[in-house]
Amino acid sequence: MEFLTSNQNQRVKDWKKLQTKKQRTRSNAYIIEGWHLIDEAFKSGKQFKEVMVVDPEDLDDLNFNSEAEVFQITPEIAAHISDTKTPQGIFAVLPLDSYHEDIPDQLTGGWLLLDNVQDPGNLGTIIRTADAAGINGVVLGGSSVDIYNPKLIRSMQGSHFHISLYNGNLNEWILAFKQQQVPVFGTELNEEAKSYKEVGHPEDFALIMGNEGNGMSDETLAQTDQNLYIPMKGNAESLNVAVAAGIVMFQLIKS
Amino acid sequence: MEFLTSNQNQRVKDWKKLQTKKQRTRSNAYIIEGWHLIDEAFKSGKQFKEVMVVDPEDLDDLNFNSEAEVFQITPEIAAHISDTKTPQGIFAVLPLDSYHEDIPDQLTGGWLLLDNVQDPGNLGTIIRTADAAGINGVVLGGSSVDIYNPKLIRSMQGSHFHISLYNGNLNEWILAFKQQQVPVFGTELNEEAKSYKEVGHPEDFALIMGNEGNGMSDETLAQTDQNLYIPMKGNAESLNVAVAAGIVMFQLIKS
Repeated sequence: MEFLTSNQNQRVKDWKKLQTKKQRTRSNAYIIEGWHLIDEAFKSGKQFKEVMVVDPEDLDDLNFNSEAEVFQITPEIAAHISDTKTPQGIFAVLPLDSYHEDIPDQLTGGWLLLDNVQDPGNLGTIIRTADAAGINGVVLGGSSVDIYNPKLIRSMQGSHFHISLYNGNLNEWILAFKQQQVPVFGTELNEEAKSYKEVGHPEDFALIMGNEGNGMSDETLAQTDQNLYIPMKGNAESLNVAVAAGIVMFQLIKS
Repeated sequence: MEFLTSNQNQRVKDWKKLQTKKQRTRSNAYIIEGWHLIDEAFKSGKQFKEVMVVDPEDLDDLNFNSEAEVFQITPEIAAHISDTKTPQGIFAVLPLDSYHEDIPDQLTGGWLLLDNVQDPGNLGTIIRTADAAGINGVVLGGSSVDIYNPKLIRSMQGSHFHISLYNGNLNEWILAFKQQQVPVFGTELNEEAKSYKEVGHPEDFALIMGNEGNGMSDETLAQTDQNLYIPMKGNAESLNVAVAAGIVMFQLIKS
């Protein structure tokens, strides 16, 4: 096991650069950190390219038998390459997964379509919540957030290892749901909107959540079968998009 | 209207320092920024000590007639005193409100008790959600987060102007709820826990949410009447605490 001690080492510089999308694309890799994420990646059978650890004895607990290159690093290097204030001292470099691009032939179960959700923390929390709710897949429409953004990776808490993520054009997805008679629910208060508690627990459905500030686009809104809203008894004008997504998803799914 | 142009001005230095709890306590004041918050503060009849604006014409829209001191500032000063990357160019300094300390005699409606929730973003989102749900009051137990932390203020989106916030000892609060025959719900998966959908919509209730990593303390847990859990069909092990709080609150309240 190689022991790296300087932030000036070329490997260390490369790891640091993985915080940028440019470098992730160039090296076809991304970085994860912390025990929970590394454990989830192992359980999901992910390939590891590199593992970096401050205390090599920690690896004993991991039942570690991958073909990854393993490096011991100093706490200073850990702080340097970490995206958090309190790094746990373990990191791994994984190859990028190819996004699912094609719309599956069978659109069964619950689906979540995101119309230009922008904040990486919100996006990650929504994907984690969709994973917990038993949603089949999440489609990221119009978002400029890279799925391997460190803040997004952190807030997903490993859910990208479980749930299918798609990059796609929402119009094409909505058309596909309609062709299979799957109801498409928007979330936007308008004259025809129903309370989210009034549509029961459909076996198959597509739920669309809109952008934090602007909601759903008019074009997408025009194509929904039904708009849902969350009645609010209190004084707040709106809910955080991740909270709203959680409330509606856990209502729609059969539990 | 005084026009300030230098970050070295003593006023500007003081505003910058309001990002720290020490300075907020010392000057008995805190800072808010952005149109939405300033608008909410006006609507709630809050007293303004100072208003700082990049473009004084913006004040015309505010129907501004308070006795606050008003300052024109440069975009550079706005960037300097702001807690965000993209400041909107308007700020105000408000006096600290005294926390409610005493437990009210009548504990009616829904109440949310937070057992050591730590992250300011989570805490703010939870308070905003409680406000939307029509919760009567939120009790912060054991938390070290200052209510005037800039990140907390930002994520509450003005809900601290609407909803009563209490600092308190959760044991004393739970005792008060019990004396008034108000059911106290914990949220922790244990042998006696029920699904959150199985307790109906009680007129009065207290709901306790625990710490992000450690959940509720054993001491608090022992005093609940009933523990609730959220059944999860998917693979994620847990939910973000703000999302979980939203799902349970919107289920419990009558809508």
